[in-house]
Amino acid sequence: MPLFHDADHPAYSSNGGVAGRFEGVLAPGEFAAAYDRVRDFSGQLVDPLEPEDMVVQTMPDVSPTKWHLAHTTWFFETFVLKQLPEYEVFDDHFEHLFNSYYNSVGEQFSRQHRGLLSRPTVAEVMRYRDHVDGWMSGLLGDGGPTGEMLRVTEIGLHHEQQHQELLLTDIKHVLGFNPMFPVYADRDDEPAGPKVRRVTGPTGYVRFEGGVLELGHDGEGFAFDNEGPRHEQLIRPFEIAERCVTNAEWQQFMADGGYDRPELWTSLGWSTVKERDWQSPEYWFARLGRQKNFTLAGLRNVDPDEPVTHVSWLEADAYARWTGLNEDRVVRLPSEFEWEIACGASTDEGEFADSFRFHPAAVSPDAGRLQGMLGNGWEWTSSPYLPYPGYRPAAGAIGEYNGKFMCQQYVLRGGSCATSRDHVRPTYRNFFPPDARWQFTGVRLCRDAD
Amino acid sequence: MPLFHDADHPAYSSNGGVAGRFEGVLAPGEFAAAYDRVRDFSGQLVDPLEPEDMVVQTMPDVSPTKWHLAHTTWFFETFVLKQLPEYEVFDDHFEHLFNSYYNSVGEQFSRQHRGLLSRPTVAEVMRYRDHVDGWMSGLLGDGGPTGEMLRVTEIGLHHEQQHQELLLTDIKHVLGFNPMFPVYADRDDEPAGPKVRRVTGPTGYVRFEGGVLELGHDGEGFAFDNEGPRHEQLIRPFEIAERCVTNAEWQQFMADGGYDRPELWTSLGWSTVKERDWQSPEYWFARLGRQKNFTLAGLRNVDPDEPVTHVSWLEADAYARWTGLNEDRVVRLPSEFEWEIACGASTDEGEFADSFRFHPAAVSPDAGRLQGMLGNGWEWTSSPYLPYPGYRPAAGAIGEYNGKFMCQQYVLRGGSCATSRDHVRPTYRNFFPPDARWQFTGVRLCRDAD
Amino acid sequence: MPLFHDADHPAYSSNGGVAGRFEGVLAPGEFAAAYDRVRDFSGQLVDPLEPEDMVVQTMPDVSPTKWHLAHTTWFFETFVLKQLPEYEVFDDHFEHLFNSYYNSVGEQFSRQHRGLLSRPTVAEVMRYRDHVDGWMSGLLGDGGPTGEMLRVTEIGLHHEQQHQELLLTDIKHVLGFNPMFPVYADRDDEPAGPKVRRVTGPTGYVRFEGGVLELGHDGEGFAFDNEGPRHEQLIRPFEIAERCVTNAEWQQFMADGGYDRPELWTSLGWSTVKERDWQSPEYWFARLGRQKNFTLAGLRNVDPDEPVTHVSWLEADAYARWTGLNEDRVVRLPSEFEWEIACGASTDEGEFADSFRFHPAAVSPDAGRLQGMLGNGWEWTSSPYLPYPGYRPAAGAIGEYNGKFMCQQYVLRGGSCATSRDHVRPTYRNFFPPDARWQFTGVRLCRDAD
Amino acid sequence: MPLFHDADHPAYSSNGGVAGRFEGVLAPGEFAAAYDRVRDFSGQLVDPLEPEDMVVQTMPDVSPTKWHLAHTTWFFETFVLKQLPEYEVFDDHFEHLFNSYYNSVGEQFSRQHRGLLSRPTVAEVMRYRDHVDGWMSGLLGDGGPTGEMLRVTEIGLHHEQQHQELLLTDIKHVLGFNPMFPVYADRDDEPAGPKVRRVTGPTGYVRFEGGVLELGHDGEGFAFDNEGPRHEQLIRPFEIAERCVTNAEWQQFMADGGYDRPELWTSLGWSTVKERDWQSPEYWFARLGRQKNFTLAGLRNVDPDEPVTHVSWLEADAYARWTGLNEDRVVRLPSEFEWEIACGASTDEGEFADSFRFHPAAVSPDAGRLQGMLGNGWEWTSSPYLPYPGYRPAAGAIGEYNGKFMCQQYVLRGGSCATSRDHVRPTYRNFFPPDARWQFTGVRLCRDAD
Repeated sequence: MPLFHDADHPAYSSNGGVAGRFEGVLAPGEFAAAYDRVRDFSGQLVDPLEPEDMVVQTMPDVSPTKWHLAHTTWFFETFVLKQLPEYEVFDDHFEHLFNSYYNSVGEQFSRQHRGLLSRPTVAEVMRYRDHVDGWMSGLLGDGGPTGEMLRVTEIGLHHEQQHQELLLTDIKHVLGFNPMFPVYADRDDEPAGPKVRRVTGPTGYVRFEGGVLELGHDGEGFAFDNEGPRHEQLIRPFEIAERCVTNAEWQQFMADGGYDRPELWTSLGWSTVKERDWQSPEYWFARLGRQKNFTLAGLRNVDPDEPVTHVSWLEADAYARWTGLNEDRVVRLPSEFEWEIACGASTDEGEFADSFRFHPAAVSPDAGRLQGMLGNGWEWTSSPYLPYPGYRPAAGAIGEYNGKFMCQQYVLRGGSCATSRDHVRPTYRNFFPPDARWQFTGVRLCRDAD
Repeated sequence: MPLFHDADHPAYSSNGGVAGRFEGVLAPGEFAAAYDRVRDFSGQLVDPLEPEDMVVQTMPDVSPTKWHLAHTTWFFETFVLKQLPEYEVFDDHFEHLFNSYYNSVGEQFSRQHRGLLSRPTVAEVMRYRDHVDGWMSGLLGDGGPTGEMLRVTEIGLHHEQQHQELLLTDIKHVLGFNPMFPVYADRDDEPAGPKVRRVTGPTGYVRFEGGVLELGHDGEGFAFDNEGPRHEQLIRPFEIAERCVTNAEWQQFMADGGYDRPELWTSLGWSTVKERDWQSPEYWFARLGRQKNFTLAGLRNVDPDEPVTHVSWLEADAYARWTGLNEDRVVRLPSEFEWEIACGASTDEGEFADSFRFHPAAVSPDAGRLQGMLGNGWEWTSSPYLPYPGYRPAAGAIGEYNGKFMCQQYVLRGGSCATSRDHVRPTYRNFFPPDARWQFTGVRLCRDAD
Repeated sequence: MPLFHDADHPAYSSNGGVAGRFEGVLAPGEFAAAYDRVRDFSGQLVDPLEPEDMVVQTMPDVSPTKWHLAHTTWFFETFVLKQLPEYEVFDDHFEHLFNSYYNSVGEQFSRQHRGLLSRPTVAEVMRYRDHVDGWMSGLLGDGGPTGEMLRVTEIGLHHEQQHQELLLTDIKHVLGFNPMFPVYADRDDEPAGPKVRRVTGPTGYVRFEGGVLELGHDGEGFAFDNEGPRHEQLIRPFEIAERCVTNAEWQQFMADGGYDRPELWTSLGWSTVKERDWQSPEYWFARLGRQKNFTLAGLRNVDPDEPVTHVSWLEADAYARWTGLNEDRVVRLPSEFEWEIACGASTDEGEFADSFRFHPAAVSPDAGRLQGMLGNGWEWTSSPYLPYPGYRPAAGAIGEYNGKFMCQQYVLRGGSCATSRDHVRPTYRNFFPPDARWQFTGVRLCRDAD
Repeated sequence: MPLFHDADHPAYSSNGGVAGRFEGVLAPGEFAAAYDRVRDFSGQLVDPLEPEDMVVQTMPDVSPTKWHLAHTTWFFETFVLKQLPEYEVFDDHFEHLFNSYYNSVGEQFSRQHRGLLSRPTVAEVMRYRDHVDGWMSGLLGDGGPTGEMLRVTEIGLHHEQQHQELLLTDIKHVLGFNPMFPVYADRDDEPAGPKVRRVTGPTGYVRFEGGVLELGHDGEGFAFDNEGPRHEQLIRPFEIAERCVTNAEWQQFMADGGYDRPELWTSLGWSTVKERDWQSPEYWFARLGRQKNFTLAGLRNVDPDEPVTHVSWLEADAYARWTGLNEDRVVRLPSEFEWEIACGASTDEGEFADSFRFHPAAVSPDAGRLQGMLGNGWEWTSSPYLPYPGYRPAAGAIGEYNGKFMCQQYVLRGGSCATSRDHVRPTYRNFFPPDARWQFTGVRLCRDAD
């Protein structure tokens, strides 16, 4: 997601924009309703939480819930409302406290210390949201803002959706750190006894022929600037797995010494495994001889048929190498372009945030087609996060950043059970460093075609 | 305070105790009322706080407010109520979460991660307090517990008073870290304009003749085990300052390059000053050319007549050396024994927590006697924290610790504006490492008599 | 260079090798002479050094000179001589001490502690070299080893050449850390007074049309496994700079606030600049108002016409962005494929280690063609270091590693003034992390063609 | 030793000195011979070393051998020779490179980076020594310097003796870090087979009655300023062990879980044991089921009858507590005053550097008197390192420091097998932090008399 290190506000452009590549999706008359819908969803997400939950920051990558609530509001205040001469700033401190990384807007409060601020309280942040929502409603209902303001507002809504996903993965980290394993959103779909595994055979693969193909966003509907320009790529024939790697398969990797065999890992992967003592995916705990994992519905048995989630790129890469040990060709992660081609050939989807389940759904046993390209978990690709040919960031503060994270990170595709369904699309490029594990991230294998 | 690194539960003894040195001060019939009074005071102290304030831990030495509330309760549950066969434990997780350092009781939750726990919430902690208070009231009202239980209960009350002081200094650190400088307890005693300084001359000194003198607690009333055994010390003639160093005097030290002259400092002091970039006491901020300091009543002008507070031993020691530059004899901090002798000759007192002002009071201009030996701020002594001759810790968990902190720390005497008046006494030995600054700690000078 | 973190022993292959992609360049009869020549060159390189110089390790990336001398010897002992039943191991400790990263060979002595070993002494290491050279000479002169041994021997020679370059850049770091700035190899080509700048205009560019082109090593002569398989790439039209960025141009970047403007940097670049306080290339020192740089000939005036060297990828990237501010198209680093295409069109070369000058040569003022694609300094490309399509590491210990460094590093091309001329070729892929500066690394610009 | 953190140049005074407390021991005519003798001993100590050995710094507390050789020379150059108008400075860089901590002399080269300097080489340092020795011989032979210069010269000789001990303990750390365990000075006194233990019973104790006693240096002969002023102490009756704790006894402590029982340790001790994973004294290694220890004669069997050495204060303190578990009174370390009183009653001595054995000698089985108060190993006392009553550092650079280390360190007494015999005396106060282990430091128990 273009949010890491708060890289959450990519430059964008529409018909009249700097780069002229993408269009906004909303008609002027749709803005007020869209604004209400997205903003309300943030409220729904924090409903199960206590004020204490919303303060804590369990690692530098995590932001407190109330910071997310305030920062997304700050975005509208700073980039939309402050353009209005009559606007009354809610609190002068907030410009400093809730700026994430806009160097051109001013100095930012230190990211790793966000969890050390008890004030403003959650109630004050909610009043801040109300204040800004009131002004925004007036603006949007009132015939509406100018073209530039509309575009920034639309960016702001996608920005808030990105933070909704982070809010979920961050609060999962906060609750998962607690030895009491609090439940965020209960669900009743776990069988009482040990689960019978449904998926028994290895995954099938679907073949694509390649060629010189056009890829990237085509300008229809909203997209972030890093999804374009649309351009040609030379693609070799490949085969991509029908489904993602399951927990049962990951347990085989573990049982086969996956975390103890240096030859399976990149150099960085091996040193990371040793330093952090990784022996399983994030949030897995052995309890009384059973493998449990912490979910937003609490500590539950690991379901063998669910796609594995909370694994890093380093683990995904090692897993692919391990799989390839018994094949006569290279097994690897798909490139982001291979993934995008495959995604265009599939309509099957997994879980999204809209279902309030916040966990990937098990894959089906009769795989004979691509399953769950969108939803369930973000899928690591082999592609470092780079600019597409001809990419050029837009000017100004709001377009200050997206390109600036194009170094040492990897592209993920497809969205997750914490993503809103209408936020993601086949060309969407999320990105994280190779050691990140607290997002819902999984593995789909790929291999060269014969 | 014997609380650093949670060194808060010293062994003790009474008439029938292991070491037979000290008596408890409470008669059996007084326990119920004393219990209510001390426990209620904790409630009063958190009344101005929001739940968010009570979660945060701004440095490893600081504990969150709700941890203090729970830990003091855990003490009664663990050392008193769990001795009762019929007692129902409130929550099994709490034994682990709220143990501070009792290795013999079990493993402790990592101290530096206390601020990463959002649960139990403040409300749950309050229910925990109610639960334990109900059982304790039943026990104390009911003819009362056995002799050993009574003694442990009395310890528990002193323990809670210690944590009340830490709660105050810890929440000051939390609020003082926040750029919004929230007010904990307002007060209206600051003049609108610049303060006219009342204290103009240097402090006078009071002379004591020394000799071989008996010092330490004499066994009348409650005392921690580290205050005894009472024993003889050889004391040389000395002169001790009538009052503590004021803010105005400290500003002279700063203006004279106090923080920039290595010759004034111990080696550790100088490296600490450089590493942490100390240029004034903790909580001092320059704002628009004025010197401000953060207090529990918010950011206020530095009052020239107030005793300086929030200075470390390292600074106190350097200040004394600086003062001595212009004298023909050594100016230094008093030993804890010199201090104790002087305290016995004075009845003047400063602020205590009981006044809810939580800041030292200004000293009076007509100093002709010892002022404020008790209250206002803890006074650093030159004495490393060591066992008195013949000291031997009591057996068992509750007596596990006091001696174990007798390494590399310094003794402070006299209590502070965050100490309850009935908690402190002339023989009370508080202790902190020489670089600690977040307690209310100040400086009284001493010198060899001619 | 495939040496970072001791990634110095890539898998290889020859006619009969595992992957069947590349041929060794040496005929069996040439081995003995080649062995002597390469091994002697190591001796020449350490000739100017004192024993004390050869012990020191000034940062974890640096290895002591004597470690390089021993490790390259260990390679021949371990992978060639230990295959002979009659071979007598020189010292049992050396297997542990001089293994760099071969997990399959055994545990390695901690890399960052290499500089803490005074023993074996330089003299003992030289005896170790003599011992192994004696056995190798016997083997190579004696009709020679088997095909596999010959191949490993050839790898060993390329391996030693890689370490010769590291030895030079590492000793430069050791001597450059010393306030006395010792001279390693003097040269007399610096004018007494300030240098008149010859290069005055901006660089010209050479245009290439692109297409679907075959790239990578074609199997003629020696190559490391990461240079193949040869494969097709889709290349867009591009223009590449005739020469590298000069010191004078870099000084303009500095004067224009290049190190102080966050908008020029990637996020990682900006945080690195701040954390390490970078304000110029590595080894630049301001002395009495003049810009000096430390070279292996000591501290000298910065020559305006020399290509800038010792800059990181992060700086190279920022410099390109800065250049693009005044152009209507993206200015960037070339991809490694664009670089390789351009290199095929040029025969101009810069300095190599063979000249014993160990510093890049100034570029010529009448640039009208590509200058110095090979030699002078390694050129950062925009390409993350990735496997080519179809790449598969060879089996076994000697082929354990090359792929394992294909994460978070960038490709450099062209060799440097510390590289042996016969070691480098157009397809050679060196790699380092984006913050590395102690190699001879410079910048050639590129831009999309109209 | 007053050398920690280079606290090696205490203020001093003689008859005419600032403080008028101590006399120098040398008559003017004895200086030239004393100078030669002390300086030559440094040369003898480095004779077994290779140049490579003299460069390495294995931890921040350790200085390279060549630094010691240069720094002691710098002392004479800076404080004696530079007072001569005709003196020619050897190398201007050395003022910066070899200053240890004299803030008033100028900025110092960073202590922890001393091991990163290959230059000046050992040979250059030796030329520096020759240069200074030539000037000093001229000065001392030539009727001699003025009174002040004589006094500084005498200080310089004691200073060099202090560094001779550090040179030995530092080179032991350097060689002991090396897996090859090089031998510094061989000795042939180890029996081939397992040693028969001679000491079988517990130590006896010698009783002293105490009283108000005069302690500290009486002004006869040379002393550092921290040994005075002589003053009265109130001493309670005590019993002190006849001999130091042996290796066999320490093995019992280990076998009884000494390193695993938190109740035996101070809080700092326990956290240090856990963080550094201490399970035995420094330099002990288990090899093939036998307990070995690294000595300056290489890796040897632990001798059960030798006094344990290389233990920290934290371990010494825990050992005393462990011993006390089975006694009805407190067993503890002696105070430095108790030790000094006992030392005055004993003439038995252990090993000194003069024997070139550099290891403590075994204690005798028939202990019926105090053994080895001087020599063998420094003995930890319970006394924090504090100024004596009336202590005041002398003025100026050479007297800049001794008092500045009087914070958080502990006093050791008696000298060690690495101390020159004529350097130590009963009043000599060495000091180190409680976690230091690389000096020859051991344990003598003490207890309150009935």
